Amino acid sequence: MGVSLKDVAQRAGVSIKTVSNVVNNYPHVTPQMRAKVQQAIDELGYRPNLTARHLRKGRTGIIAFAVPELGNPYFAELAGAIIDAAAQHDYTVLVDHTAGLRERELLVCQEFRSHVIDGLILSPIHLETADLVARQETSPLVLLGEREYEAPYDQIAIDNVAAAREAVRHLVGLGRRRIAFLGSRTDRERQPAHLRLRGWREELVASGLEPAETLVVATDGYGRADGAAAMSALLDRGERPDAVFAYNDLIALGAMRTLIERGLRVPDDIAVVGFDDIEESRFGAISLTTVAPDKHAIARLAVDRLVERLSGRSDSEPRRISPGYELVVRESTGGGRTAPGHGRDPGPRPGDDSPTPPPA
Amino acid sequence: MGVSLKDVAQRAGVSIKTVSNVVNNYPHVTPQMRAKVQQAIDELGYRPNLTARHLRKGRTGIIAFAVPELGNPYFAELAGAIIDAAAQHDYTVLVDHTAGLRERELLVCQEFRSHVIDGLILSPIHLETADLVARQETSPLVLLGEREYEAPYDQIAIDNVAAAREAVRHLVGLGRRRIAFLGSRTDRERQPAHLRLRGWREELVASGLEPAETLVVATDGYGRADGAAAMSALLDRGERPDAVFAYNDLIALGAMRTLIERGLRVPDDIAVVGFDDIEESRFGAISLTTVAPDKHAIARLAVDRLVERLSGRSDSEPRRISPGYELVVRESTGGGRTAPGHGRDPGPRPGDDSPTPPPA
Repeated sequence: MGVSLKDVAQRAGVSIKTVSNVVNNYPHVTPQMRAKVQQAIDELGYRPNLTARHLRKGRTGIIAFAVPELGNPYFAELAGAIIDAAAQHDYTVLVDHTAGLRERELLVCQEFRSHVIDGLILSPIHLETADLVARQETSPLVLLGEREYEAPYDQIAIDNVAAAREAVRHLVGLGRRRIAFLGSRTDRERQPAHLRLRGWREELVASGLEPAETLVVATDGYGRADGAAAMSALLDRGERPDAVFAYNDLIALGAMRTLIERGLRVPDDIAVVGFDDIEESRFGAISLTTVAPDKHAIARLAVDRLVERLSGRSDSEPRRISPGYELVVRESTGGGRTAPGHGRDPGPRPGDDSPTPPPA
Repeated sequence: MGVSLKDVAQRAGVSIKTVSNVVNNYPHVTPQMRAKVQQAIDELGYRPNLTARHLRKGRTGIIAFAVPELGNPYFAELAGAIIDAAAQHDYTVLVDHTAGLRERELLVCQEFRSHVIDGLILSPIHLETADLVARQETSPLVLLGEREYEAPYDQIAIDNVAAAREAVRHLVGLGRRRIAFLGSRTDRERQPAHLRLRGWREELVASGLEPAETLVVATDGYGRADGAAAMSALLDRGERPDAVFAYNDLIALGAMRTLIERGLRVPDDIAVVGFDDIEESRFGAISLTTVAPDKHAIARLAVDRLVERLSGRSDSEPRRISPGYELVVRESTGGGRTAPGHGRDPGPRPGDDSPTPPPA
């Protein structure tokens, strides 16, 4: 600690400017000079101050990732992937928390922290297209998640309708006919739940099944307790689904807890599918079948778009990019048991002959 | 959006300075003037720019909470509590991630981001007392977690030895005699695992039981996969414990998954106790008995200490503060089943007559 550019210059017998040129990888430095400076750097254990380098370019070297729910492991896992992706570009990531509140979403994407952060990756809940169009702050912004905006910003989101259809198709393929949907938020038409709910509806219709609205349960939030309460509510009003497709893994895990408490067997009585593939879904007593968005692709795409715009390398039109996903079949729908910690389970078991997807 | 101090001043027919005095709650403003300005604020929907207020005092209004594991819900839950506590003082919290790497721990507590953050709450893994003593950065720093430092900084940590003893005492009280410890890190003497392991050892000795080192399993990390692997390793070498005390909930949850895969019953064959009381521990198919640190007290104490020092209100000696904790008994040790989402379970059931704690 405390080794400066000046110390390196003295040790190497060169000017501070020369050391700076080497550290910043500027051209016009002879290989001999570069070697000399590098030797001094190694001997002294000098570590270039990335912050200072960013500051010279009028930047802080920090990007923010603003999430609606810190307590949802999906966002924690995504944050980890974003931190890794940003490190490749010498950027540090700080995680900001909007609690899904419109006011805080507005704050983070307006002027609030422009003196601190160079760019923002935001996963919004309540923000409207009009808010984004009205945005005056000019620092780069990349949007994640399922809301669809008509605003001039890059958006990274998997195809939620298609992914939900694949989950429901899997359940139909297992012979399930009364497939409930937990976690709708009917009050907000452009919510992600809206897209997943639409996928549920479309796939049931395509399979010749009725999308019974009595099997749809709205939740107040997206957590385990919400899933447990929704499952209880459904059972309490006398419904007996043979499968549940939940908006996310936390809701699915909460629902499973309720099923177990009620003495119902998963998957025999009720099969359960979640969405997110959080690590927890692999480690429960009954591992959870789930839609796994490609979190690393989401993170890489988001950071790449942001850094390209930060560096001025890209003036291209903002785009909507859809990373991949896969359905991971586990015990909650009769998938095979695999040793925990071995990452992904294999795909559907032999005998799980899902029908070919109908045309969308 | 876009309403400025100037707009408020014009609407109220007063000077910008007067509006500023009202907004900042300075004295020497007459009640009439205050009411007039407040009316204009309300009419225009003006929201004071907290950042600007902090900036005028040479601050950014941001404190960082640096955690070793974003993917561990304990830290996510603690971050939520810290964000809430900081909001009471008009501070915003950004979450930084050290990945438990010494290099990054040094960076966050040295000069790295002093242009961005006013103060730091750090939960270190590898940092040494010498590193802290050598720290030149003068911004306030509060340390969380179980490492014990002899350095002039406030530290907030529950009494890990006492908490671990209570967990083991609970298992002994249930008649368990072969109690394993999963998650030791014997290479690092001052690790938290060291304190919890010491508690395990002390309580067994106090109970007249032998702390068999063959029942102690080290793990590479603190996650579910580590717990699953540790449990497998223990069983594979022919050990048959009748209880497991895990370093944390994630390790306990991973171990339970292994037990279920091996056809062992929890708690009948093997009772399991974790540490942290993450939400997930309440929602598994078998809910987890765990030591619950008072996260809200930890967060409040940390933020209060930091803000006191930031405001210059406190020059008091740095202190080591121990918030409370409680053992929450659930199904993994035979505790009663409770509806999920109802928060804490009640304490030990009648009949769970733990012996009186022996003198430490």
